[in-house]
Amino acid sequence: MLSYDDAIARILAQISPSTPVSVPILQSLGHTLAEDIHTQSPLPPFDNSAMDGYAVVGADAGNASVETPVALALLDTIAAGGDVAVRVTPGHAAPIMTGAPMPAGADTVVPVEDTKRVGDGVWVLEGAAPGQFVRKAGEDAPAGTLVVEKGSAIRAAEVGMFAAAGRAAALVYRRPRVGVISTGDELAEPGAVLGAAQIYNSNSYAVAAQVLEAGAEVAVRVHARDTFSDLRAAFDACADCDVILTTGGVSVGEFDFVKAVVEERGSVEFWRVAIRPGKPFVFGRCGQALLFGLPGNPVSAMVTFELFVRPALRQLLGAANPMRKIETAVLTEDVAHETGRRDFQRAVVTESVDELRVRATGRQGSGMLRSMVLANALMIVPEEVAGVQSGDTISVIRLSS
Amino acid sequence: MLSYDDAIARILAQISPSTPVSVPILQSLGHTLAEDIHTQSPLPPFDNSAMDGYAVVGADAGNASVETPVALALLDTIAAGGDVAVRVTPGHAAPIMTGAPMPAGADTVVPVEDTKRVGDGVWVLEGAAPGQFVRKAGEDAPAGTLVVEKGSAIRAAEVGMFAAAGRAAALVYRRPRVGVISTGDELAEPGAVLGAAQIYNSNSYAVAAQVLEAGAEVAVRVHARDTFSDLRAAFDACADCDVILTTGGVSVGEFDFVKAVVEERGSVEFWRVAIRPGKPFVFGRCGQALLFGLPGNPVSAMVTFELFVRPALRQLLGAANPMRKIETAVLTEDVAHETGRRDFQRAVVTESVDELRVRATGRQGSGMLRSMVLANALMIVPEEVAGVQSGDTISVIRLSS
Repeated sequence: MLSYDDAIARILAQISPSTPVSVPILQSLGHTLAEDIHTQSPLPPFDNSAMDGYAVVGADAGNASVETPVALALLDTIAAGGDVAVRVTPGHAAPIMTGAPMPAGADTVVPVEDTKRVGDGVWVLEGAAPGQFVRKAGEDAPAGTLVVEKGSAIRAAEVGMFAAAGRAAALVYRRPRVGVISTGDELAEPGAVLGAAQIYNSNSYAVAAQVLEAGAEVAVRVHARDTFSDLRAAFDACADCDVILTTGGVSVGEFDFVKAVVEERGSVEFWRVAIRPGKPFVFGRCGQALLFGLPGNPVSAMVTFELFVRPALRQLLGAANPMRKIETAVLTEDVAHETGRRDFQRAVVTESVDELRVRATGRQGSGMLRSMVLANALMIVPEEVAGVQSGDTISVIRLSS
Repeated sequence: MLSYDDAIARILAQISPSTPVSVPILQSLGHTLAEDIHTQSPLPPFDNSAMDGYAVVGADAGNASVETPVALALLDTIAAGGDVAVRVTPGHAAPIMTGAPMPAGADTVVPVEDTKRVGDGVWVLEGAAPGQFVRKAGEDAPAGTLVVEKGSAIRAAEVGMFAAAGRAAALVYRRPRVGVISTGDELAEPGAVLGAAQIYNSNSYAVAAQVLEAGAEVAVRVHARDTFSDLRAAFDACADCDVILTTGGVSVGEFDFVKAVVEERGSVEFWRVAIRPGKPFVFGRCGQALLFGLPGNPVSAMVTFELFVRPALRQLLGAANPMRKIETAVLTEDVAHETGRRDFQRAVVTESVDELRVRATGRQGSGMLRSMVLANALMIVPEEVAGVQSGDTISVIRLSS
């Protein structure tokens, strides 16, 4: 049976970031940047005041103090964004607002706090270092500076930087359109009254929520009953999707139609991976779409999404590293393990002063969604290990994004 | 001047979580749950098979092996979701699918892998423990079990659990509606050609993106020129908002209208906090809305958002802890500090084997948005400290959510 490492390597090897699209910068938040962003103008574009105060000739105010104030004659006020007709000459001061352009002749700003208005003039009460409180044109970045690199994750700071560089739109990797198909005659919609042999359909919601958490778009969400015609109709509804996810119908039973329909429409690349939970997992192609057939057990569906689908979606989204970080934690309880498959147990990681600690969330039955609710991590028990003891270190994947 | 600790305490003391609203469960993702969720039916609702295989009377198959196979006569197949008319008696086996209800008389499931079809019957080739592969009704949770608690952050697992408990909708704290008002005659829209004394308006975008990152809704985003009438019109546009954010216009200059308009419409609770960057910061009320007047310098606006507005929005959203975690890191460079104000320097935190390390992002000018792009953390230099040296430990706030 394929190992997890081989399976995820085979999946990622065939995925490139999706087509870049131009979006208004506020909508680019959370995407990966698909171009380099350079400043067009210098930042700032002109010499300007860093304070509300007075633009002066530096030599005038250098020796001022409360005991020996320097009196200067007032010129017109320079507002931020205003025209600068003023020219400052020795013995004069132009009131200036933060961000307003420095007037000709002035090279220094005396902050309001260091002055006192007296009659038609102003007294400088504190010595000013020549050049103080002036932001020089281009001091943050000359024109043409690379300010955000292709491949960056776009957070609020990057959105702000795009705007500061004059960009109204930015090129990002398009969100993959994902189709979610749940299967199984036993599934009832939440809110409905359960029939005799029915359970509620949780996979459709849990997996769709995982798609959204990964940053992709749920384009289609549909349930198929256990017939070829219903499943084919569900696949038809996903014709425009980049990724199709199914839950259930990939085991060895008589009603496991998913593999058959995938083989009609495309190809199964592999089926079954040596992991627990989630051994019956299908990866394939369906037309242009990537196809992930997840097991029907709710925990298996969520864990295989986390292990296989999330990295694929993150790679489509252009993420620099599509895999989550693997950390090391100290076990606080013994964990039993049957050798042969890599086990991804639902676990709780806590931070102690100088290490992470981890324990399983208790019963690990693959139907028990509650173990996912209690978990903030998966704990990785390697294939060949018969069990691990309290005090051993173990690899963990924290699930918060 | 007010300390940061006093300022944030005063803000949070007057904020309660916003009104709970009922939303379809998939839309509840990312919200905080405003009710307890209990199972309605037991989970699972009926005894069912954990495997594809055969439902048998346990005593029949206990001693089977390849050498001594047990031959059983076949009954009708039990599909998941199907009616169960079958009754299993000794010497018989009913083919059963994963999730299908256990038929009367059977207490054990033999997986397909442990069997062989022979003629009209099936041979069991491996001893079965009585009761194996049967999931008992209620074994995950009896009816009425509390499965997700009020106050929980809703992730994909919680969405799945809501569905499994039969819930189509859940009660969550409503996203606050936020109005973002940027001010300043010097600001041009990204994409426009800059005038002589103009810079691009980055605050409106950076702050709106921070609102979205915090999980709130940008209901209004508008720019006001430096006139009373323009600013009043902008406040009018935010009449329905829960929170109003302004950028700029809170300093001591002649064109700093924000405080005046807030005092017309409501009240200023405090102005100026002993922090750097961001000293000129206004907190107040404007009708029903909370009002945060952020400084106009791009870095000061983003840092004061992070320090004051994000906790307020998270508290409105019902988050269990609205503040980010404070961690400790080891400095890798000396940091100078002017005593008197608490300094939140933009910093890069890296994870080494057993500690966090931190350095400043270089020049910390409050106009330099690039320092926010480079940063993944804020480094806290306390008020009374004159400087910190390489090797010292220091508090840091990591900015990823």
